[in-house]
Amino acid sequence: MDHQIPCSLKQSVMFSHKVAQLSKALWKSVEKDWQTWIKPFDLNINEHHILWIAYHLDGASISDIAKFGVMHVSTAFNFSKKLEERGLLVFSKKENDKRNTYVCLTKEGQELFLQTLEAYEPTTYGVYEGALPIRNLYGKFPEFSELISIVRHIYGPDFVEMFEETLHKFDEEFTEQEGKLVKKK
Amino acid sequence: MDHQIPCSLKQSVMFSHKVAQLSKALWKSVEKDWQTWIKPFDLNINEHHILWIAYHLDGASISDIAKFGVMHVSTAFNFSKKLEERGLLVFSKKENDKRNTYVCLTKEGQELFLQTLEAYEPTTYGVYEGALPIRNLYGKFPEFSELISIVRHIYGPDFVEMFEETLHKFDEEFTEQEGKLVKKK
Repeated sequence: MDHQIPCSLKQSVMFSHKVAQLSKALWKSVEKDWQTWIKPFDLNINEHHILWIAYHLDGASISDIAKFGVMHVSTAFNFSKKLEERGLLVFSKKENDKRNTYVCLTKEGQELFLQTLEAYEPTTYGVYEGALPIRNLYGKFPEFSELISIVRHIYGPDFVEMFEETLHKFDEEFTEQEGKLVKKK
Repeated sequence: MDHQIPCSLKQSVMFSHKVAQLSKALWKSVEKDWQTWIKPFDLNINEHHILWIAYHLDGASISDIAKFGVMHVSTAFNFSKKLEERGLLVFSKKENDKRNTYVCLTKEGQELFLQTLEAYEPTTYGVYEGALPIRNLYGKFPEFSELISIVRHIYGPDFVEMFEETLHKFDEEFTEQEGKLVKKK
């Protein structure tokens, strides 16, 4: 940012309001569809997000969950506690890190997470359906590189790396069988 | 969409999860910054959004507010009611439309909305700060045309037109004076 172009207040408020409208609209749509997807499993979005993060990190601290799940630390803790009560995860300390509490999925927790993925139906997701015309036009889904750059600036590089790694790992570990998402043997 | 490219379940869940992470991260950032901005005026985000929509539509029905503000009809109604109690808006019927209730800002409501704009400080908005490197690189803010296309698919063309018109009207009606945003005389 050596050569900063002066930016008017007006441009700033217009840009911020545009992002406000777009991100609210997208998130509210995702929130509704996500909720519908996992409702049969008696989970809410925060609980499912915790299972997802703990599944992929293979032991996540409460602050990892709060950071990568974009939720308050207290929210991360309280919903993790509820999942523990249901026997879906356990709290533990690491040998080399006695200060932090880590969350590890139990066998039941892992199985429930995999069941939710098996139950996923693409047509129930508005953002996916809304992106199909772009995919049919360009042959691939939009990459949102500008959005990712903004998110990286706000939440730090590790936030973006974490979710890109999650997607990469997911891509490698899962496969499609008879129209359902299952873990590779 | 005549030539649909077959899309795997895996691609679908990965794309939906990517949009979920990005839109949640952006919206939570915007939500926090928006709240900080308008807190001195004893308004919450829904109330400020209602003032904004009613200001620009010059008389908005409750369903307009719910639609363009991406909130439930009951949320739109309840917060409009609170603003009415504070004397910031009035409910009324239109001569040619007796079925719907319209919300019109009072002089006090308009003034309060203008005061919030005067108090706007760009540096308090994470998404704006995060977009500055892109602006310095390309000479303009990102347009998010793919995101807008997805939002148009989900919420309909009038949702996108409404907020583009709002921004256009804002651009024409406001100017910068001594580092503050004010309405043109």
